[in-house]
Amino acid sequence: MGNSFGQLFKITTFGESHGAAIGVTIDGCPAGIQLDEKFIQSELDRRKPGQSKITTQRKEEDKFEILSGVFEGRSTGMPIAILIRNKDAKSKDYSHIADKFRPSHADYTYEKKYGLRDYRGGGRSSARETAARVAAGAIAKLFLKSIGVDVNAYVSKVGDVSAPHYTQLDISKTESNIVRCPDQKTADRMIELIDSVRKDQDTIGGVVTGIIKGTPVGLGEPVFDKLHAELGKAMLSINAVKGFEYGSGFHGTTMRGSQHNDEYIKEGNQVKTKTNHSGGIQGGISNGEDIYFNVAFKPVATIMKDQQSVDKEGNEVTVSGKGRHDPCVVPRAVPIVEAMAALVIADFYMIGQSGKLR
Amino acid sequence: MGNSFGQLFKITTFGESHGAAIGVTIDGCPAGIQLDEKFIQSELDRRKPGQSKITTQRKEEDKFEILSGVFEGRSTGMPIAILIRNKDAKSKDYSHIADKFRPSHADYTYEKKYGLRDYRGGGRSSARETAARVAAGAIAKLFLKSIGVDVNAYVSKVGDVSAPHYTQLDISKTESNIVRCPDQKTADRMIELIDSVRKDQDTIGGVVTGIIKGTPVGLGEPVFDKLHAELGKAMLSINAVKGFEYGSGFHGTTMRGSQHNDEYIKEGNQVKTKTNHSGGIQGGISNGEDIYFNVAFKPVATIMKDQQSVDKEGNEVTVSGKGRHDPCVVPRAVPIVEAMAALVIADFYMIGQSGKLR
Amino acid sequence: MGNSFGQLFKITTFGESHGAAIGVTIDGCPAGIQLDEKFIQSELDRRKPGQSKITTQRKEEDKFEILSGVFEGRSTGMPIAILIRNKDAKSKDYSHIADKFRPSHADYTYEKKYGLRDYRGGGRSSARETAARVAAGAIAKLFLKSIGVDVNAYVSKVGDVSAPHYTQLDISKTESNIVRCPDQKTADRMIELIDSVRKDQDTIGGVVTGIIKGTPVGLGEPVFDKLHAELGKAMLSINAVKGFEYGSGFHGTTMRGSQHNDEYIKEGNQVKTKTNHSGGIQGGISNGEDIYFNVAFKPVATIMKDQQSVDKEGNEVTVSGKGRHDPCVVPRAVPIVEAMAALVIADFYMIGQSGKLR
Amino acid sequence: MGNSFGQLFKITTFGESHGAAIGVTIDGCPAGIQLDEKFIQSELDRRKPGQSKITTQRKEEDKFEILSGVFEGRSTGMPIAILIRNKDAKSKDYSHIADKFRPSHADYTYEKKYGLRDYRGGGRSSARETAARVAAGAIAKLFLKSIGVDVNAYVSKVGDVSAPHYTQLDISKTESNIVRCPDQKTADRMIELIDSVRKDQDTIGGVVTGIIKGTPVGLGEPVFDKLHAELGKAMLSINAVKGFEYGSGFHGTTMRGSQHNDEYIKEGNQVKTKTNHSGGIQGGISNGEDIYFNVAFKPVATIMKDQQSVDKEGNEVTVSGKGRHDPCVVPRAVPIVEAMAALVIADFYMIGQSGKLR
Repeated sequence: MGNSFGQLFKITTFGESHGAAIGVTIDGCPAGIQLDEKFIQSELDRRKPGQSKITTQRKEEDKFEILSGVFEGRSTGMPIAILIRNKDAKSKDYSHIADKFRPSHADYTYEKKYGLRDYRGGGRSSARETAARVAAGAIAKLFLKSIGVDVNAYVSKVGDVSAPHYTQLDISKTESNIVRCPDQKTADRMIELIDSVRKDQDTIGGVVTGIIKGTPVGLGEPVFDKLHAELGKAMLSINAVKGFEYGSGFHGTTMRGSQHNDEYIKEGNQVKTKTNHSGGIQGGISNGEDIYFNVAFKPVATIMKDQQSVDKEGNEVTVSGKGRHDPCVVPRAVPIVEAMAALVIADFYMIGQSGKLR
Repeated sequence: MGNSFGQLFKITTFGESHGAAIGVTIDGCPAGIQLDEKFIQSELDRRKPGQSKITTQRKEEDKFEILSGVFEGRSTGMPIAILIRNKDAKSKDYSHIADKFRPSHADYTYEKKYGLRDYRGGGRSSARETAARVAAGAIAKLFLKSIGVDVNAYVSKVGDVSAPHYTQLDISKTESNIVRCPDQKTADRMIELIDSVRKDQDTIGGVVTGIIKGTPVGLGEPVFDKLHAELGKAMLSINAVKGFEYGSGFHGTTMRGSQHNDEYIKEGNQVKTKTNHSGGIQGGISNGEDIYFNVAFKPVATIMKDQQSVDKEGNEVTVSGKGRHDPCVVPRAVPIVEAMAALVIADFYMIGQSGKLR
Repeated sequence: MGNSFGQLFKITTFGESHGAAIGVTIDGCPAGIQLDEKFIQSELDRRKPGQSKITTQRKEEDKFEILSGVFEGRSTGMPIAILIRNKDAKSKDYSHIADKFRPSHADYTYEKKYGLRDYRGGGRSSARETAARVAAGAIAKLFLKSIGVDVNAYVSKVGDVSAPHYTQLDISKTESNIVRCPDQKTADRMIELIDSVRKDQDTIGGVVTGIIKGTPVGLGEPVFDKLHAELGKAMLSINAVKGFEYGSGFHGTTMRGSQHNDEYIKEGNQVKTKTNHSGGIQGGISNGEDIYFNVAFKPVATIMKDQQSVDKEGNEVTVSGKGRHDPCVVPRAVPIVEAMAALVIADFYMIGQSGKLR
Repeated sequence: MGNSFGQLFKITTFGESHGAAIGVTIDGCPAGIQLDEKFIQSELDRRKPGQSKITTQRKEEDKFEILSGVFEGRSTGMPIAILIRNKDAKSKDYSHIADKFRPSHADYTYEKKYGLRDYRGGGRSSARETAARVAAGAIAKLFLKSIGVDVNAYVSKVGDVSAPHYTQLDISKTESNIVRCPDQKTADRMIELIDSVRKDQDTIGGVVTGIIKGTPVGLGEPVFDKLHAELGKAMLSINAVKGFEYGSGFHGTTMRGSQHNDEYIKEGNQVKTKTNHSGGIQGGISNGEDIYFNVAFKPVATIMKDQQSVDKEGNEVTVSGKGRHDPCVVPRAVPIVEAMAALVIADFYMIGQSGKLR
């Protein structure tokens, strides 16, 4: 249960970190979309391990195969199944934790909930699962491009190092450095911080900011399936995420209504808002302004230090750090945040069309 | 669309601020639950307007009627429909905004999405809708009580005035003051702040903290329907909410893995964690520790000041403040946060039972 | 659970035979539909008890109240809640079966599944619940009318008395007699049969045929949510239904492919089929021809004769006939079949629109 | 859309007849089920083409690979993905119908709905898709076996040749002949009929009867998700199905209530019914008696004769028979009917458990 996301543009993922493969089925992608395989691969490459000195050294090619739903290069409206074989699955690395629960991992909760678990590399709870999301998100992006919607994300914070507000950045530069922060000075400090944390055999958290431009007015389905509620769920479903805010977010709680309200103005024939504390969403529905939001990632739980824990029999034990891991997850999380955002928007766009009957 | 929440313990709400009635149908409440009507009324009373000088002066009795699903005082497993008639619907108050869009309200987005809107009191986008959630949440609470789960919330922040961490508070005192902050000194300062904002004819935001105790290990359905992802969606679906974080939340992004990880220890026969930065959830599944989270509310959009806007024809106009409103929404939001949390837990509990087949 | 139907045009019903009220919430009705209350009432009147000598003598006015989702006579896109109060709830009539299970009713299965039951008039399992479906179906019909789709049903069989094939009938005459068979000669024989069965204090089954005209090509969502699969589920969910077939149906199993296949021809610019054994559906998707189907209803289980049974304690007992009932359910089932068919088509129409993105 | 089935024991299928592969993801299979791969293969072998002279001569090994969700031979509660590569995909055979619509196939409706179609072997609308259902159904059967439920089906009718009622048959003999009818005499006549139809280059329809034994009392979720309504939908979603009836079915419409009602009796401590016209389901909920039902299959649409049709440009054309096909689909449909029935029962069993909270 719980491995599907979306209502009309719906994905179902499968696969464990060190099983045969991971993958995704996308049911509901409109027919006729040109499926640019190079683009899908480039998105997977942005997420894949081993990209730089500040990411895990696990080697995965993340080559994908489309098994269905595409004919002569275009989507047919049938389910699109995508398969990614696991290559570098060093199962031996993990045998030492078969019976021990790593602190702040999902080992303990999976064992208790299901009565058994595939402990190899964290099994299903590994962030390896997010490759399937990125593949599906790439297809959602291709669809959104056809309707003029653009989804971007970047690293806005690592530890205490923050980038300026998105409106002061040139987002097109996100990919110009390994930490994926479009402000090079901030990026340098972030990389330095991550590198020093890595040398300490420790990890650090951070924040990814997402921006969605070009959304038509009218996406979102109140009162429960508000656009930001579904976006929030999408982000919180990503491994290691601890928080979500959009528009003015937590900071907005300290503001007064008279400061916070976004007054309407005319720009030519278009209705716009003077400010955008609403983050492009009012009453749970997009208003055409930029949608922007922050996603908080905790420090990666895998560290190279000894930690206190218990084993399956309930004995107190020591878990020793071992294996490969990211010192900071946020650079690789950028395409995942984009993918989930694209899936949410694609789904609401389709639901919105269903009401266009009059 | 979008007016249902939950999979097995599922609610569907209806109703506008100034229509005939609001209400909710709860489909999936287990049979045999003793439905204590006094308790349900007391929950509605905690949310209802006109409670104190710091809430709106609209008068609603919020008397409810159970129309179905209950026989001889107990739930029958059939859908439970609850009806709350609207009493104090001063439609005249709102005629002046029939054709104007109030800044940072849902007027503009509803008009554009649906092509028409019930503008009376904000129609469906009014927070009046949350009374239906509170009624349903009360039933979820009665069910959760029977399995030992306790859901609480309180006001932890108004503007810049913050209460201490929940572990340092006596939550049983939440109802002892009108702002619903269990720390009386902080409460006094919060009330003072709200009162001064009110006199300025302005509004202010705040934070509600939720705490769930007694949750069994195993609730939550990864990888998309993680416990905190569904909780986040539930909270973000409440009017005026701008952010959600659980456990260490946004602060956790500044921590190192070695500080943040929650080591396992034994307490008698029970596995516990030394710290609880995880907020009671690991890998999207409850681990038996306290679940705690923060919900950010923006300042109420209705203010008594003139604001710039546009009308339906696209002319620039001035919207003048009028009507009744809350200077700060968080005191009345406390039972709503509890209701939504209770609904999420009840639903996951039922889904969890479905897997208990071996 | 199980009290909602539909994905985008979604209804949720509630209420027991002898509780306070029954009702329905329609979530997803497009905005802007003119809601003709007289039409809704006329549909309810077609279903209501006490219409003629061949229906139950229970008296219910079935007056409805729209509680939400409508503003100035038009749907707003918000949930439409409809309330129907129960009037003639003679609870005393049923006290004698509080502890006994009536043969071929739902008494036994409800008691065992839920641990308790509202036995008054059959509680939730009573066909009284279908009034809510008819109200919702009337709204679906109003919507379908706006897109040129017409849904009709009639009684095609009572016991062994059959009407000719629908293509040989003038369906506009369905309401011209109390048994709702458009062929008056057959109607007379049906009425005679029902009347004789009624005098025997017995009951008899029958068949309702549904016809949907004007459906656009393209409705239905293979491979599981095929148009006829959803139609079949809708019909089988009606009380007392034992079977569903569409197009050639069970008779088609005796045919050869060369007889059964519907060859394509041109009529002016339109593609048509020479024959219509497919019943307007190919591969689970409407092809623009008439959709037609049969729904089999068993004889009503309530009879005036003594029957052998058991009670809650497991003692063998005799159940004596008592109360009011229909000698044959099919005349009143006609508007219910139409309502469910309209709901299915409305839902698929909306889903179909969602794919219209290219 | 429409490629998922089930709520808690949920499957999503993908794949085209002549694409790379077909497959299924099962989300919600309880953890700890021993996944007997030999049994899964044996079920696929019962469905696969080329089994006998009365089935299509297409050659497919239907070897499957489990990609996820299984660890050390047991289900882990994670999604189970199953992959079946297509081998014998003679795309050339089908190029002649790329632009023509075969009568009573899904060619026309797919083309009109989606704007393009994978015409190779019928693409997604081919019955090849049902192999994925059989694989998933095999897992459902393994789960049901662990709770004592047994699902069987057999061919009860081919053209006009009928087998006796299931209560007069030894169902264990179903696999003893190539037509899968447990009564050898009837089987011989069926085979003879199919063979003669095949020689005529024609096809013939038939009926498959399903029987479910050992179901606990309480499965099914009224009022819409009644057990027989979901069973009906499941069966009607299978290619070529035109009708569904359970218990007394269409024949029951000719009976009187006094004949049709199933009186309750005691057998030892157990409540049983004297007769079983209800087909094991009352009020949409299983009562513990045998569940039995009939599924009507039309004659296969692919015939070796010339037929009149139109092409994509709307010209009238002749479609000539070509390719491999089954003269009668019912023998191979037996395992498909069983699979879908097993999936329905597994799902309702899990939903039923969710209510077991008191």
